[in-house]
Amino acid sequence: MAFEYRAKCFDIEAGKSIVILNKVDAERLDLFAADRVIVVKDDKELISIVDISDKMVKAGEVGLFTDVWKKLGAKSGAKIVLKRAPKPLSVEFIKHKLDGGQIKKPEMETIIQDIMHENLTEAESSAFISSVYINGLSDDETIFLTDSIVGSGQKLDLGMHPVADKHSIGGVAGNRTTMILVPIVAATGVYIPKTSSRSITSPAGTADTMEVLAPVTHSVEEIKDIVAKTHGCMVWGGAVNLAAADDKLIQIRHPLRLDPKGMMLASVLAKKRAVGAEYVVIDVPVGRGAKMEDLTAAQSLAKDFLDIGSRLGMHIECAITDGSAPIGRYIGPALEARDVLETLQGRGSSDLLEKSCLLAGILLELCGRAPRGKGYNVAKQVIDSGAAYKKMMEIIEAQGGDPKVKPEDLPIGSKRHELIADRDGRVQHIDNRAISKIARAAGAPREKSAGIILHVQKGDKVIKGQTILEIVAEHQPSLDYAVETLEQNPPIELEKIVLQRMSGAKPITLEEIRFREMGGGSK
Amino acid sequence: MAFEYRAKCFDIEAGKSIVILNKVDAERLDLFAADRVIVVKDDKELISIVDISDKMVKAGEVGLFTDVWKKLGAKSGAKIVLKRAPKPLSVEFIKHKLDGGQIKKPEMETIIQDIMHENLTEAESSAFISSVYINGLSDDETIFLTDSIVGSGQKLDLGMHPVADKHSIGGVAGNRTTMILVPIVAATGVYIPKTSSRSITSPAGTADTMEVLAPVTHSVEEIKDIVAKTHGCMVWGGAVNLAAADDKLIQIRHPLRLDPKGMMLASVLAKKRAVGAEYVVIDVPVGRGAKMEDLTAAQSLAKDFLDIGSRLGMHIECAITDGSAPIGRYIGPALEARDVLETLQGRGSSDLLEKSCLLAGILLELCGRAPRGKGYNVAKQVIDSGAAYKKMMEIIEAQGGDPKVKPEDLPIGSKRHELIADRDGRVQHIDNRAISKIARAAGAPREKSAGIILHVQKGDKVIKGQTILEIVAEHQPSLDYAVETLEQNPPIELEKIVLQRMSGAKPITLEEIRFREMGGGSK
Repeated sequence: MAFEYRAKCFDIEAGKSIVILNKVDAERLDLFAADRVIVVKDDKELISIVDISDKMVKAGEVGLFTDVWKKLGAKSGAKIVLKRAPKPLSVEFIKHKLDGGQIKKPEMETIIQDIMHENLTEAESSAFISSVYINGLSDDETIFLTDSIVGSGQKLDLGMHPVADKHSIGGVAGNRTTMILVPIVAATGVYIPKTSSRSITSPAGTADTMEVLAPVTHSVEEIKDIVAKTHGCMVWGGAVNLAAADDKLIQIRHPLRLDPKGMMLASVLAKKRAVGAEYVVIDVPVGRGAKMEDLTAAQSLAKDFLDIGSRLGMHIECAITDGSAPIGRYIGPALEARDVLETLQGRGSSDLLEKSCLLAGILLELCGRAPRGKGYNVAKQVIDSGAAYKKMMEIIEAQGGDPKVKPEDLPIGSKRHELIADRDGRVQHIDNRAISKIARAAGAPREKSAGIILHVQKGDKVIKGQTILEIVAEHQPSLDYAVETLEQNPPIELEKIVLQRMSGAKPITLEEIRFREMGGGSK
Repeated sequence: MAFEYRAKCFDIEAGKSIVILNKVDAERLDLFAADRVIVVKDDKELISIVDISDKMVKAGEVGLFTDVWKKLGAKSGAKIVLKRAPKPLSVEFIKHKLDGGQIKKPEMETIIQDIMHENLTEAESSAFISSVYINGLSDDETIFLTDSIVGSGQKLDLGMHPVADKHSIGGVAGNRTTMILVPIVAATGVYIPKTSSRSITSPAGTADTMEVLAPVTHSVEEIKDIVAKTHGCMVWGGAVNLAAADDKLIQIRHPLRLDPKGMMLASVLAKKRAVGAEYVVIDVPVGRGAKMEDLTAAQSLAKDFLDIGSRLGMHIECAITDGSAPIGRYIGPALEARDVLETLQGRGSSDLLEKSCLLAGILLELCGRAPRGKGYNVAKQVIDSGAAYKKMMEIIEAQGGDPKVKPEDLPIGSKRHELIADRDGRVQHIDNRAISKIARAAGAPREKSAGIILHVQKGDKVIKGQTILEIVAEHQPSLDYAVETLEQNPPIELEKIVLQRMSGAKPITLEEIRFREMGGGSK
């Protein structure tokens, strides 16, 4: 059964195909909001989601949003035929998962394809994420999801070995180890085609920081060339179509702030698999203010990475690291790039150097480039010999940057605000989340030169009047906003009597404390 | 921190407050799609959801959808200030439910209030429904939800006793027992202020059918008057603000086709509580093609109604009835209204009369109007004496209808199509869902005169060439559509060797069969 309507075009970019029907016509077609219709103009057709209005369009009209009229080549007044469309098969599979069922491989592929093609409504995608969050993913489902994500995009097939990769769970400000580790590992002859993300909620992603030194947007073919030439690269994953579905899944999860474990495992492992990684080190920072605050949970996540990774044929080692404070003294793209270059020269932040050499050492051991237990020493040697710095300059040049760049050349914002200690004390805690908020308010990562310079580290003694940190911004309004954010989110704590509340044997997480303060009961 | 923008007004009725920001401005404010902002114009402000576009609005502009510019009294070019808004508290409570926690009374009230005020995004509402679907509601939570739904609207306080009510879980075509039961019960002096819904997916709701005989849209004050005068009424629940949140919850659940048990319990009981019902009979039809296909599940649902109802201080009895075929011979508003009047006159469909008297009898026993075990007889007597028919005419008159209406006066569509038996046989099954689809395709309930006349009942012998059913429509295109639907959904089955597949002791439901045919595993 099909009905005819007159097109009324709206200049609305909805990011998906939406048509609007008058209430009367919707009833006649037995359609409800969020149902789907096949929209036909001449020999072109597409599936759209229905919105219902009694004002925007009259009976006999169909409102077409931009995505729809562009694809159909329709103008206002054009003859449009509507037919009821079936729900995508995915909706059945999601229902099955809501019912506690297991998703099979072809079903998972269908769900990922439907997500890729924007075939699901916001409510349906949300139900999928919720079902995975509550019911979890089995090991099999996690592997199906990983494979489906890999299958949704291109693959990087270097045809060279060994291929190594690295991932950090994140949540630690300034944690720019990738940019130290990649040159170290590449300098030993191991291939490390590193793709990184831009920041979503942090002051800088690896891609944002690397971009200060060289272009990070490269095609798969260009990446192959760069890696063939230098053994390594540090490019923006978003520019290539590797593990394409992962970005869509992140978009869906973000508004709900839901991060189901199985999805996180699949997301990380799919990106590694898509570049053909055989050896992978995963950094799992734990501690107050980090993404993971509970050691047991971190250990369990690490074990899952090992299990699933081994079933996918990867050699993985996880390092559970101290994530209770920022790494390095600089926060923000240009400031972190400066820290990276200085560290590669052997004069940067000592904690950044230590952590990078530890993680690089693990990879070198995994790849057989260092005897077990000696990886750190080998990595340190590669730094000390200048080989890592040289390799970094090669990679910068291969990616189209200036290989003669000096740390002190990097542009740092001229608007400054200093936070001064108002009493003597010892630094007990530097809060990653507060640091992150303040640096973002100052403009990072949008403005490369904005961020924070930390003048103290955890454990340092400070005296009244001393500068604790500096906010750096490009423009005065951003600096003002950052100072306001600083006042609302004090990032540095001097000693307190009670550092953390405990209950029985199990430490209470910050989240639980916040929950109870909101009037919640036991979790 | 607040930023200023120039308004750009869009004529888009989104049903909620939405503003559009350019990508650049969104980044500057650190806002993501589906985040919320406080939108300020002069001394007016409201909370909106953010959509992000790089085309619809330029940097420095903010797009305002109709709901927003109307409420703010803003025109294009007006100065608008945006501030980040916190997420509604509900989002935390929903997260808690996703995490397997229990929702407390004030938290449930907050969630229902936020749903009422359109404060939640589609994804957030969907996560709430999904969490309740998977994790279930405890008895306490069901009661909190019931109370919150009742509290979201007006209450009908008759100040008279006893007050009875009735509900059917639905899914059975033609099941118009309410319109027989209400006059019977009212005729015995019991108050029965019945609110009913319009059809969502069936060919007729009780409100649609009653509307053929009298107006069903009345205010709470009018309902009070009608019930004070006649002891009963049959009005459209959607016209009054009783249990207002229930409609919103149905709107959210509909696109996902999720019907969590606790929500269904709360939905039914809130509507009863809002009219002050003390005695309630609940019809739970079970059988192939009905909403509930499994007897054990129906029994468990009935037990939940008894438990929760008793904690709410209501006297409830559930009747598990045969829902495997339509009740009555007529499907569609006018046809069903005709069947109702004829049945009240003692000459309608015998199964409709039987079922109505059984359910009415249970209520009469509950209210002390009949001795235990004698309710059916008393109800039958009220029909036979003509008292029920007389009461029906009183109610029709009180609601503004014509009390002299004759069944044969009701308009029935003139376009007809007959389904003819192509062989001899016995009717094994009449499928409610197929009947429903065909009748809706014919125009019901939108066109009151459209529907289906069944010429056979389950168990009847038919001979080749005999009319099995007739489709009735107002217009030829609707009849054509219904015939097409009939061909795709054969509603009547003559004998088959295998009626239902069995596995071990547990009957397989139709849904499971379908699931397995789709390639699913064990559930």
